[in-house]
Amino acid sequence: MALIGLKATPFAVVTQLLGIAGAVLVLVWCIYFMGGLAWEATNKSLIFNIHPVLMLIGLIIIGGEAIISYKTLPLRKETKKVIHMVLHAIALVLGIVGISAAFKYHNESSIANLYSLHSWLGITIIVLYGIQWIYGFIIFFYPGGPSTLRNDSLPWHVLFGLFVYILAVGNAMLGFLEKLTFLENSGLAKFSSEALLVNFTAVVTVLFGTFVIFTVLSQPIVEDDHSYSPI
Amino acid sequence: MALIGLKATPFAVVTQLLGIAGAVLVLVWCIYFMGGLAWEATNKSLIFNIHPVLMLIGLIIIGGEAIISYKTLPLRKETKKVIHMVLHAIALVLGIVGISAAFKYHNESSIANLYSLHSWLGITIIVLYGIQWIYGFIIFFYPGGPSTLRNDSLPWHVLFGLFVYILAVGNAMLGFLEKLTFLENSGLAKFSSEALLVNFTAVVTVLFGTFVIFTVLSQPIVEDDHSYSPI
Repeated sequence: MALIGLKATPFAVVTQLLGIAGAVLVLVWCIYFMGGLAWEATNKSLIFNIHPVLMLIGLIIIGGEAIISYKTLPLRKETKKVIHMVLHAIALVLGIVGISAAFKYHNESSIANLYSLHSWLGITIIVLYGIQWIYGFIIFFYPGGPSTLRNDSLPWHVLFGLFVYILAVGNAMLGFLEKLTFLENSGLAKFSSEALLVNFTAVVTVLFGTFVIFTVLSQPIVEDDHSYSPI
Repeated sequence: MALIGLKATPFAVVTQLLGIAGAVLVLVWCIYFMGGLAWEATNKSLIFNIHPVLMLIGLIIIGGEAIISYKTLPLRKETKKVIHMVLHAIALVLGIVGISAAFKYHNESSIANLYSLHSWLGITIIVLYGIQWIYGFIIFFYPGGPSTLRNDSLPWHVLFGLFVYILAVGNAMLGFLEKLTFLENSGLAKFSSEALLVNFTAVVTVLFGTFVIFTVLSQPIVEDDHSYSPI
């Protein structure tokens, strides 16, 4: 059964709108306010700027779309499984590249790595995300586990996946707060347009994550294909 | 039904141990490393120090105990309801006093209020926590709503309560990171004992929150009194 008796449709629509808003906001911040993105640059800040863009659009937004794809797409279960798996693979790869950008920025700017709570949780999350993806691939896709193991694994796959996703959204909050605090310590005014924009982006992100969870907990849009309703 | 087929006992035991560890860690940090607690002081930092202690021990730990009390106590349902309500009231009051300490510190140190993501989410969370408590009191305790409204409200009370609690745990992470970033900007070494202690306290807090959720999702320790099993 689904925990919420309501259809997923309104939750899914709000999720999409929040996802678009979050993607636009983080691009405006990193390109307009912080000067753009670059993998190689003498202005090392441009390397850092890749990090929030890929973590938000990749891990959080595309990852969220992967999570709700079972509930929102009017497709056959096998098709949705492939979409779920591919979207999560894209999210994971963008997340890994995004984390690499943070390390590259630190290394080229002589900033210590892995001292902050954000980095500790971030490494934990990306490792758990990877383990979850590999386990899902092996058990549910190829070669596929025995049917009892698949059935026993499914609720844990859902629960563990939501746990990792909530941690990821929480860690995005930490990232926004940490970077903004650095900027404010370097002179950015606390109620400047940029500071408010970053906080609003964070609020949109937490709302996006919330609506992903609501969508997962609600009734599938199309019910006639025995979609797995996790809870 | 409970989402997890396992008994709450092991989860509840781990929750208690993590709660004790978190309380000890935050007291060691605020008293030993940051100089102690005071409501009136010329050293304004001592006023701030009240904030993490009351938010963690009050809102997060006592609030968490309130949440799991239905699952863990071998008592009659009506007794557990009173304990649940009183513990949440204590958590809420300590949370409000803890937030007041942050404002008092800011005001007496000429620091702006309500500019950070931590403060925005914090105000949102304490307001939602208060609304949740008042709604619960009126509908489930005194004068009590009609039985259909009570039955319809209960799953939403659980879902909304867990949502607010997850936000509170996430916001505690933001608080630890924000304060530690300020300290590091004022000269604290990034891998000093104090910095590591704060990060470990944050990790213990997120584990405590996780085990509160696991406890809620598992089977009640005592089943013979028709305890409400939320999911």
